[in-house]
Amino acid sequence: MNSLRSLCVFGLVLALVSPLPAFQDKALLGFNRESSARQQRLERRFDSLLKRDNMREWMRRMTLRPHHLGSAYGKQNAEFMRGLFRSWGYDAQLEEFQVLFPTPRTRLLEMTAPERFTAKLAEPQLTEDGTSSQNLSEQLPVYNAYSIDGDVTGQLVYVNYGVPRDYEILTERGIDVKGKIVIARYGGSWRGIKPKVAAERGAIGCIIYSDPRDDGYYQGDVYPKGAWRNEGGAQRGSVADMPSFPGDPLTPNVGATANAQRLRRENASTITKIPVLPVSYGDALPLLRALGGPVAPSDWRGALPITYHLGPGPSTVRLKLEFNWNTVTAYNVIARLRGAERPDEWIVRGNHHDAWVYGADDPVSGAVALMEEARAVGELAKTGWKPKRTIIYALWDGEEPGLLGSTEWVETHADILRRNTVAYINSDSNGRGFLYMGGSHTLEKFVNEVARDVVDPQKKISVSDRARALRVANSGGDERREARDRYDLRIDALGSGSDYTPFLQHLGVASLNIGYGGEDGGGSYHSTYDSFDHFTRFGDPDFAYGVALAQTGGRIVLRLANADVLPFAFTNFSEHVERYAREVMQLTDRMREETTERTRQRSDRTLEMISDPKETFVLPAAQAAVPYLNFAPIQNSLARLATSAREFDRAMNSAFASGRALSPEAYKTLDGVLIQSERALTRREGLPRRSWFKHQIYAPGFYTGYGVKTLPGVREAIEQREWAEATAQTDALAQTLNNFAVEIERATAILRSGAAGR
Amino acid sequence: MNSLRSLCVFGLVLALVSPLPAFQDKALLGFNRESSARQQRLERRFDSLLKRDNMREWMRRMTLRPHHLGSAYGKQNAEFMRGLFRSWGYDAQLEEFQVLFPTPRTRLLEMTAPERFTAKLAEPQLTEDGTSSQNLSEQLPVYNAYSIDGDVTGQLVYVNYGVPRDYEILTERGIDVKGKIVIARYGGSWRGIKPKVAAERGAIGCIIYSDPRDDGYYQGDVYPKGAWRNEGGAQRGSVADMPSFPGDPLTPNVGATANAQRLRRENASTITKIPVLPVSYGDALPLLRALGGPVAPSDWRGALPITYHLGPGPSTVRLKLEFNWNTVTAYNVIARLRGAERPDEWIVRGNHHDAWVYGADDPVSGAVALMEEARAVGELAKTGWKPKRTIIYALWDGEEPGLLGSTEWVETHADILRRNTVAYINSDSNGRGFLYMGGSHTLEKFVNEVARDVVDPQKKISVSDRARALRVANSGGDERREARDRYDLRIDALGSGSDYTPFLQHLGVASLNIGYGGEDGGGSYHSTYDSFDHFTRFGDPDFAYGVALAQTGGRIVLRLANADVLPFAFTNFSEHVERYAREVMQLTDRMREETTERTRQRSDRTLEMISDPKETFVLPAAQAAVPYLNFAPIQNSLARLATSAREFDRAMNSAFASGRALSPEAYKTLDGVLIQSERALTRREGLPRRSWFKHQIYAPGFYTGYGVKTLPGVREAIEQREWAEATAQTDALAQTLNNFAVEIERATAILRSGAAGR
Repeated sequence: MNSLRSLCVFGLVLALVSPLPAFQDKALLGFNRESSARQQRLERRFDSLLKRDNMREWMRRMTLRPHHLGSAYGKQNAEFMRGLFRSWGYDAQLEEFQVLFPTPRTRLLEMTAPERFTAKLAEPQLTEDGTSSQNLSEQLPVYNAYSIDGDVTGQLVYVNYGVPRDYEILTERGIDVKGKIVIARYGGSWRGIKPKVAAERGAIGCIIYSDPRDDGYYQGDVYPKGAWRNEGGAQRGSVADMPSFPGDPLTPNVGATANAQRLRRENASTITKIPVLPVSYGDALPLLRALGGPVAPSDWRGALPITYHLGPGPSTVRLKLEFNWNTVTAYNVIARLRGAERPDEWIVRGNHHDAWVYGADDPVSGAVALMEEARAVGELAKTGWKPKRTIIYALWDGEEPGLLGSTEWVETHADILRRNTVAYINSDSNGRGFLYMGGSHTLEKFVNEVARDVVDPQKKISVSDRARALRVANSGGDERREARDRYDLRIDALGSGSDYTPFLQHLGVASLNIGYGGEDGGGSYHSTYDSFDHFTRFGDPDFAYGVALAQTGGRIVLRLANADVLPFAFTNFSEHVERYAREVMQLTDRMREETTERTRQRSDRTLEMISDPKETFVLPAAQAAVPYLNFAPIQNSLARLATSAREFDRAMNSAFASGRALSPEAYKTLDGVLIQSERALTRREGLPRRSWFKHQIYAPGFYTGYGVKTLPGVREAIEQREWAEATAQTDALAQTLNNFAVEIERATAILRSGAAGR
Repeated sequence: MNSLRSLCVFGLVLALVSPLPAFQDKALLGFNRESSARQQRLERRFDSLLKRDNMREWMRRMTLRPHHLGSAYGKQNAEFMRGLFRSWGYDAQLEEFQVLFPTPRTRLLEMTAPERFTAKLAEPQLTEDGTSSQNLSEQLPVYNAYSIDGDVTGQLVYVNYGVPRDYEILTERGIDVKGKIVIARYGGSWRGIKPKVAAERGAIGCIIYSDPRDDGYYQGDVYPKGAWRNEGGAQRGSVADMPSFPGDPLTPNVGATANAQRLRRENASTITKIPVLPVSYGDALPLLRALGGPVAPSDWRGALPITYHLGPGPSTVRLKLEFNWNTVTAYNVIARLRGAERPDEWIVRGNHHDAWVYGADDPVSGAVALMEEARAVGELAKTGWKPKRTIIYALWDGEEPGLLGSTEWVETHADILRRNTVAYINSDSNGRGFLYMGGSHTLEKFVNEVARDVVDPQKKISVSDRARALRVANSGGDERREARDRYDLRIDALGSGSDYTPFLQHLGVASLNIGYGGEDGGGSYHSTYDSFDHFTRFGDPDFAYGVALAQTGGRIVLRLANADVLPFAFTNFSEHVERYAREVMQLTDRMREETTERTRQRSDRTLEMISDPKETFVLPAAQAAVPYLNFAPIQNSLARLATSAREFDRAMNSAFASGRALSPEAYKTLDGVLIQSERALTRREGLPRRSWFKHQIYAPGFYTGYGVKTLPGVREAIEQREWAEATAQTDALAQTLNNFAVEIERATAILRSGAAGR
């Protein structure tokens, strides 16, 4: 026994410190060699259970009818899934919330000058697509959820992507959107940013269209010939101000249970200030073609066969929107498999189940992979094996309108989730191609190990190697060198856009978001054409990547559930945060240089000298100089953190290398500290002006939406030139990083005393 | 007298060495303070004589009818100009050449599959344009001159810009153009490169179209609403292989006089190997829309409202072209004003007069500015002043088909031009906006001084300051710092595309090319819409920049004609050549790195790992490693040259600072050496595979066309991976630079002995 154990320990040490590719018989992170071998046998059995035909059949069934939040079929899907989970041995429940969900009653967009045109606002029914012409009365029409009601008429202004920088450029051309209706193209930011910024600038209405440059024939053949958005296709989606808080607009911070205290709708700050409507490029073309005024800057121009002008007018449009502001029931499917040793340590694995219409890709492709994963885990549990820790599978309702199901569930169960949740693992859409990994960098080593163990179905190499090859081919210089040489592939920091947000950014639960894609054809996003037919032609026709996702998610869940010690590691995290800090410092330097240059060009009259007298030119406003900020507190915290992270690794190694395992109590205490570590990255008061967002390392951008802002408190203060706030946030971040280091140091102490104590 | 002279000398010294902005009362380069003041008075009189109405009236007259090479109206224009020049006091002659000039007899382009379509091949007649519907029988239709006759049918392949790199990308996608007809868009290279490369790759025909992305509605409103090319507009132009040699294809190296020995047409190497036809985007759209095969790479996609595919086919087209291979007469207008002191030192100033159709912008806008400049010079000469050196104004015929008039004139008079020509000053089109300067860097200091003395008509600052402000605004980093701080604005090296080529690159005459633009609307280039109406709406409506060009060209000519010492300076040249040498070395290093990387990715199977199994993928061919080359000979020559250039400056300064002028003989000897200095940059054997091009510093790119290749012998050998040739060319270049340094050293010696001798 003893000699076997020391061999195992040797393997574990290797896994922790080796910069070389893993041996096949290495111990997995968090396992000793014995438990690791057991785990790998379990995973082989798990793999052998996965059946792509299940996924195909469930997708076909779940996409037969529209299944958005509040729909009859959405509820049926939830009940169907609950039934399946129960049949697989889970304790499965539907958990209901009562949420505000507006659906359109009136949608009118017409151009009244210089000619009349009424937008169709409907996606064509295609005979080549099995469902686009079915269940018409059940399909949600094209609209943006949480747009306010309104009836506005005004001249049109083209605002490109409608982000703050675009309005600066309009200002330089003498164009003001006050009292105007803006038309923005999708892209460049999350859609909800567009009406938010437009309203801040005084616009009275907002139209968002899909330009064929970004999302149409420019990208590839359009549906049904190819995968891409056709001229009648349009993108539904939420425009609630989710970077303030996601979830039900009436119940921030609390679960939207039947008896929850609710805001009055007038006081719901995440509902837009102006009416918003998405349209197809077929509907946008006449409006844009009739615009006058200056020609748009070259990087504002899309792929419509026109000269893009900025306006204002002469295109004048009326936008009239009325919604049914109903409260509907969201049905989360929550399925538990109780942990045999540490039932109070929870691994939560989720994917939403609601769609905008049929949602074969978004979300069913991810949901069915999760279900097949859960079925196989259930099968394993029926045949003797039991997870050490509790596994919770969740299929969220109402993700599309604003992460409603997940957010309300998290807010309802915040206290126990904070106590118990080890990690949250999310997926959403899935398709053919390359593994995508995002999440907490405390899990970067762990998820990389998983990726090295999943085989790409097309190339028969690991999905990690394939993802690495893509980075090598698509990068250059230092980035390419790192793509080749860094042992772990970097995982992306998470902004928002799917159900990890309440876990990661509200609770401070270490989270991952995974999926495959890049070789699947786009263009069906949030359209009625996101159908079974579309997905099985262009997405993942044989569900091979559905299997790959189940293998990836399954390994993550099974390893987290079974590990001797939770497989967190902190050196990657510490290195990432150092990079983010460098970025923020460089950002400040760059802003300082740009501001100095702008001031110099103002005083040299450079822009007046080159301006074309035939075109309107407004001198950019003067800017105060960018001060030098004190980043030393962050740098000092990072130095401590780097040491703490290294010491933890060393303690892990020597605890196991001593040949003596920890006591069961020490293991449990250690788990407890590791579980709580990510919580130390949150602050109770949250971020400035958005207290719901507690995490101090990752947040969606206040003016970019889904796009992540790392070190958001400091970074956004700098971007907004709020220097006093930047300084305060610098101190807060330093304190947060110190708190985090303290947690790691606690874990290290447990390892040392636990190892010494036996 | 003496004290006055020493003051003047002080001024001259300042002008040569001061890094500060010039004083208003400084001495001009090549002048002493006394002659400088005289010169500046002369230039003020010159300015006062310039009349914009003359330009307007001449343009109206010269653009009334089509005036291409060989046309009746072209001859009438030449006779009209000869009459004007004579009335201004010039010895003006028409000098005739007999040149091959094909015009179309049959033009047929039809698509036979997958549907039938016949291209219109005609530019719509517009009532808003005074001449597009006039003189239809005289208008040259849309065609490419020096396309071979042919009648070919084949599947179509889209080849982007049709440059060598584009074919590599096609190869990687498994597409071969052998036996196919290619369709390329205008841009990315000079047009003649497209059929040349296509033929090298085995294509049997070539269609060139104007994509609206580069030259149509994407850029701005189309004619007649705006300036840009409409869907029926097309670009005529030569496709003779001018990077081999320009001029009459039948008489390389000799003037195309009536009795010249001519090649048989079958042996004329610059005529294309396959038939070529330009079309409008209206004609191209059905052909491109019907293409199948892979979707084109994103940077290949234009602005047509389609998904761009590569083919081959199913679009199948027939291209039938037959030409009248006539010999026509080219009429150059040559007008002389004899120099009073040094009549054998010639300043040649030229602009072509032939157009593709009406040619208001190209070339009449430049021609009328040159004419007004010449008229004012003639007026000055009628009132007592005489130039020291001889001034020759030239209005070339047949520039459009291939620099015929200028090339044949240069070849005819090569010996005397080599002996006598100080410099050639070219202009072509002109419009509203910013000064453009290109040319020999031995004239960079000089032309910058001129630019500081011309006032921008819109901004009332110097055209130099306006050009500098544009560079400051549009650049960043080191480039911006240099744009601000370098005393002289860099002038571009010249490739080809206008009549300076035979002077600069065949004879080795220091040359300049100047013009204004950037605020004039494009889109009429080589179209029937390049009309008086178009130009006076979008070009230079009030001819203010015509006046600016006359002022610029006039100052250059008058200063070159009157200077005490020719205003050449060599430190700028030496610095530029050092930069070019650095570029070539960096190019080699970059190619080595890229080749190493490509080899590594081949052995790592990176591209196989990421390729999409649903798409064709061909592994890029293996490449031999890039060797390290011996650049030391060039570096040693450059070190010597830098010293020689500095010593020349010092000798100039001390010669004048000594307070004693040179003897008239020494001045003349010095002029003689300076005139010949640029000739030392040529080699009798010319460049590899194109002996007509003698200059070793500047040449049009063999595979880019108009775009310049500096240090062409070395650079193109490296680009083509001809390592032995690169080494030979390195030695040849080093020898050339040494020869040039010897000339400078001779000039320095004259300065020293001349100054010492008196």
